[in-house]
Amino acid sequence: MIIDGLQCGYFDRDVFERLKQGNVHCVTPTLGFWEGTVPSLESIVRWRDLARENADLVGIATSAAQIESLAAQGKVAIVLGFQNATLLEGHIGFVELFADLGVRVIQLTYNNQNDLGGSCYEAEDSGLARYGKEVIREMNRCGVLVDLSHVGNRTSREAIEWSERPVAITHANPDEVYPHRRNKTTDVLHALRDHGGIIGCAAYRNIAGDEFCKTVDKWCELVARTVDIVGIDHVGIGTDKSHNTTQRDLDWMRKGHWTRGTDFGAGSAARPGKAPPPDWFKSVEDLGAVEPALARAGFSPAEVDQITHGNWLRVYRAVMG
Amino acid sequence: MIIDGLQCGYFDRDVFERLKQGNVHCVTPTLGFWEGTVPSLESIVRWRDLARENADLVGIATSAAQIESLAAQGKVAIVLGFQNATLLEGHIGFVELFADLGVRVIQLTYNNQNDLGGSCYEAEDSGLARYGKEVIREMNRCGVLVDLSHVGNRTSREAIEWSERPVAITHANPDEVYPHRRNKTTDVLHALRDHGGIIGCAAYRNIAGDEFCKTVDKWCELVARTVDIVGIDHVGIGTDKSHNTTQRDLDWMRKGHWTRGTDFGAGSAARPGKAPPPDWFKSVEDLGAVEPALARAGFSPAEVDQITHGNWLRVYRAVMG
Repeated sequence: MIIDGLQCGYFDRDVFERLKQGNVHCVTPTLGFWEGTVPSLESIVRWRDLARENADLVGIATSAAQIESLAAQGKVAIVLGFQNATLLEGHIGFVELFADLGVRVIQLTYNNQNDLGGSCYEAEDSGLARYGKEVIREMNRCGVLVDLSHVGNRTSREAIEWSERPVAITHANPDEVYPHRRNKTTDVLHALRDHGGIIGCAAYRNIAGDEFCKTVDKWCELVARTVDIVGIDHVGIGTDKSHNTTQRDLDWMRKGHWTRGTDFGAGSAARPGKAPPPDWFKSVEDLGAVEPALARAGFSPAEVDQITHGNWLRVYRAVMG
Repeated sequence: MIIDGLQCGYFDRDVFERLKQGNVHCVTPTLGFWEGTVPSLESIVRWRDLARENADLVGIATSAAQIESLAAQGKVAIVLGFQNATLLEGHIGFVELFADLGVRVIQLTYNNQNDLGGSCYEAEDSGLARYGKEVIREMNRCGVLVDLSHVGNRTSREAIEWSERPVAITHANPDEVYPHRRNKTTDVLHALRDHGGIIGCAAYRNIAGDEFCKTVDKWCELVARTVDIVGIDHVGIGTDKSHNTTQRDLDWMRKGHWTRGTDFGAGSAARPGKAPPPDWFKSVEDLGAVEPALARAGFSPAEVDQITHGNWLRVYRAVMG
């Protein structure tokens, strides 16, 4: 069984069937990048409708126990997540309301600084702002996982230390393994480890690099090097796989409403468009190849279980209660 | 025990204590009149905070069983209600989300026509609009009570017939007893009765009239005449009592954002301001006088129980499941 800590794009029945084929029995889709409260509620409505229409294949889960129960029925558990805190529109009280509506993961900041803290692409990382501290406390209270994937390194360190529950970097890689602003410095990863958190290794070409995208064994080498840095208890999978996205969606993800100019996100002027998927990971069912490859990389069966789902379940249990 | 189907204004610990003194163990406060989605969520946050801060006195209830359990503990059950459908901002999917957040009563239209249907103060009542039908079906499915108090008579009749569950006129009186546009014509009341609904008799001077405001016995005469029209199984209490409201609040209730002119709501040019409370009902604890007065009016103990709480509980049970 695989738990994927982050995917994005447009899910449909075909994607759900491929997830099952790939032995992925839990995934956190991205319900929003820049959206405010009302479009975020609309996104929840769409996901509820989608889950109802495909109730034979998927179910929305709000606890580790529900994930396990859905997986045991051969279904895919959906953990509702947002990649930005814009859904709150500055309301501390909305954390509880969104949690009541099933949201279980919120990334503190997306590509830009916001009212909570600094982001990986800002020249200056402010650190965790006053409101960011309030939101983390409330997320802790309401069983919502703090996601730091796109958060700046300083804000990430401060959030790890401030949070009373383990936090996650749901989709990123170690900067030491593949240097990139979206990847995490070793000091952040050690703090994450020391506070019981988890990093989901990404299979997104822009932040994994061409080399680790060649074969599944190459990608598992990236996973192994991440384990070397944070230890076997703190590594999971968070592919950042995007389904059915177009250039228009990519523009929204990168430019939102915040710029009339150009922004390449994790890409660059040299690689401006949609990054090609890893050679071994053209479609989501290919994730089925990860478990045997992790075994070939030298992980024991128990360690493979930890990386593929056990560590995620431990963190979900600690956060969602 | 008294259930009051509608109050409004600003509640605080003092009001909660007075409710208890008056033997009122369940009340539906008004969380919004004209507000869209975000300020309606803010209102829910405020009520949750208020309920938490006064957890020794009150609790938010979402079912008849919870109301009974809170009352048995000597507490006041709060049933979250809105006097307009503006909180949905045209989203059918938001009915379920607001229901999940605890909302159990929504009035289809307030003083003005909206996307659901016609209102009591419009020259022309359109009847129940297409979206209004969708919203009622969704409210039926999600356990939210349809309130028709300010709704136009034609829309009211159509809503009563369209709804698959009993509906309520939470705070109004029979037009036959006190003629007023806010009060309900006999054909509407008979349809309400025939479909298992309930009318909460109002103790708001503008729609009860000076005569029925003189003494509690006079007001119970109004209740008795309502029983004559719809039968003992379909009458409850819905005072429309407003707490701590100022002229500014009254302006908001009447004018919202919709007019730069003047609107008197249930008042008139001759009686433009805040209507004085009934002589017998200066503060909410005075409701304690209603039970003995109903007995004096000739109702048996079982009938008094029906009017004061039994009929409301039956409707709540039928709607909220």
